[in-house]
Amino acid sequence: MPPSPLDTIRAIAFDVQGTCVDFYQPILRMGEALNREKELGIDWAALSAEWRELYRQALDQVIAGKRPWLRVDRIYREALDSLLERRGLADAFSSTERDDINTIWTRLDAWPDSVEGLTRLRKKFVTATLSNAGMTAVISVVKHAGLPFDAILTAELAQSYKPSPNVYRLAVDYLGYPPEEILMVACHKYDLVAARAFGMRTAFVARPLEFGPAAEPDTSCEDWFDIYTNSFVSLARALGA
Amino acid sequence: MPPSPLDTIRAIAFDVQGTCVDFYQPILRMGEALNREKELGIDWAALSAEWRELYRQALDQVIAGKRPWLRVDRIYREALDSLLERRGLADAFSSTERDDINTIWTRLDAWPDSVEGLTRLRKKFVTATLSNAGMTAVISVVKHAGLPFDAILTAELAQSYKPSPNVYRLAVDYLGYPPEEILMVACHKYDLVAARAFGMRTAFVARPLEFGPAAEPDTSCEDWFDIYTNSFVSLARALGA
Repeated sequence: MPPSPLDTIRAIAFDVQGTCVDFYQPILRMGEALNREKELGIDWAALSAEWRELYRQALDQVIAGKRPWLRVDRIYREALDSLLERRGLADAFSSTERDDINTIWTRLDAWPDSVEGLTRLRKKFVTATLSNAGMTAVISVVKHAGLPFDAILTAELAQSYKPSPNVYRLAVDYLGYPPEEILMVACHKYDLVAARAFGMRTAFVARPLEFGPAAEPDTSCEDWFDIYTNSFVSLARALGA
Repeated sequence: MPPSPLDTIRAIAFDVQGTCVDFYQPILRMGEALNREKELGIDWAALSAEWRELYRQALDQVIAGKRPWLRVDRIYREALDSLLERRGLADAFSSTERDDINTIWTRLDAWPDSVEGLTRLRKKFVTATLSNAGMTAVISVVKHAGLPFDAILTAELAQSYKPSPNVYRLAVDYLGYPPEEILMVACHKYDLVAARAFGMRTAFVARPLEFGPAAEPDTSCEDWFDIYTNSFVSLARALGA
């Protein structure tokens, strides 16, 4: 058998939100509690999808230089304000209450396979986050969800956002391996497209429930993925970890 | 009892080399093996002390702006060249062999109390390294020694070195707490002097064997330390962790 390009992998960088952790269920739980408390009928499933969409638009504006860099927690907060405004709910939540709602992004749930898979992978490889969320937020998420990593790297360290190459460069600079020895793991294709363009290996982990049971995110296989799987445990198995 | 300033601590930043890990014994073991292999009589105990001294001088030149920022692994490598030159041993080690010797700084031993103490402290506080070594080196050390941290922060992220305030600011920016809610832990007084000037709380952990049994580093108590102890386990106890 010819040697696989996977044999040279020494380090693994992981997208976090959606890939390592589920944000949909935590937002839904929080939203249902708020609806009860305030006697509101907000569709938090729809709101969570729009929230992520506005977030993505803001990141793209930053990458395009249309607005200065600002941290993801500010972006989420601004997006929440817009969403409440759109729904005619601007008076329903005070500024402090909105700040509280916004902290949901620091308390997300590990997918059921994440801890076991990461624990196995960490024994064989150097493992790090490579997230668009802020350092403080990712440290909180990882601590809250009990995810074991060797290092926390986030786009904040590059003052940019994925898919900017400056973010993938963090993994090379701080993990100490050339791009072709680093595997990028994500459930979003745009992330892996950019990682591959940067010279990294790519693993797609399908997370069909990322936006809830009603949504149908694109989880189809692409022929250029180095690995295609649906859990961190099977990813570990594929890498002999 | 009046409330203690320690009651507000939410996060802890740790110096690594000397404080979390022992570099003396690993260098000595490596040196003895090299002496046998090459039939040399190098005094590695003395060399290790001089190595750290030249390293400190180079860091100070960087902080003073007398030379541009360069990573600690380069500083250690240059210092090793100087030391071998001084001892008339320039021909004894090839460039590749010197590179190999230099990697000792990525394979240091945890002090006997480090893992237990850090494990306990991490349950109650956000914990991070705050080291002058490079990101890659600290990630390697922490992985090699099995030290549990929530985040890896090093002076490389600020392109400066302790005691520059820019390095302590990393803990505030990336751990997300104001200085007075962060405890700096170190076995070197200059580090705590600077952390305190920045507004952080300070814990001195005496490591009398940092430079080997013959050396006598200054491990005396100062009245301005918030905590003075000789192990991470007793530090955890002092903080109720």
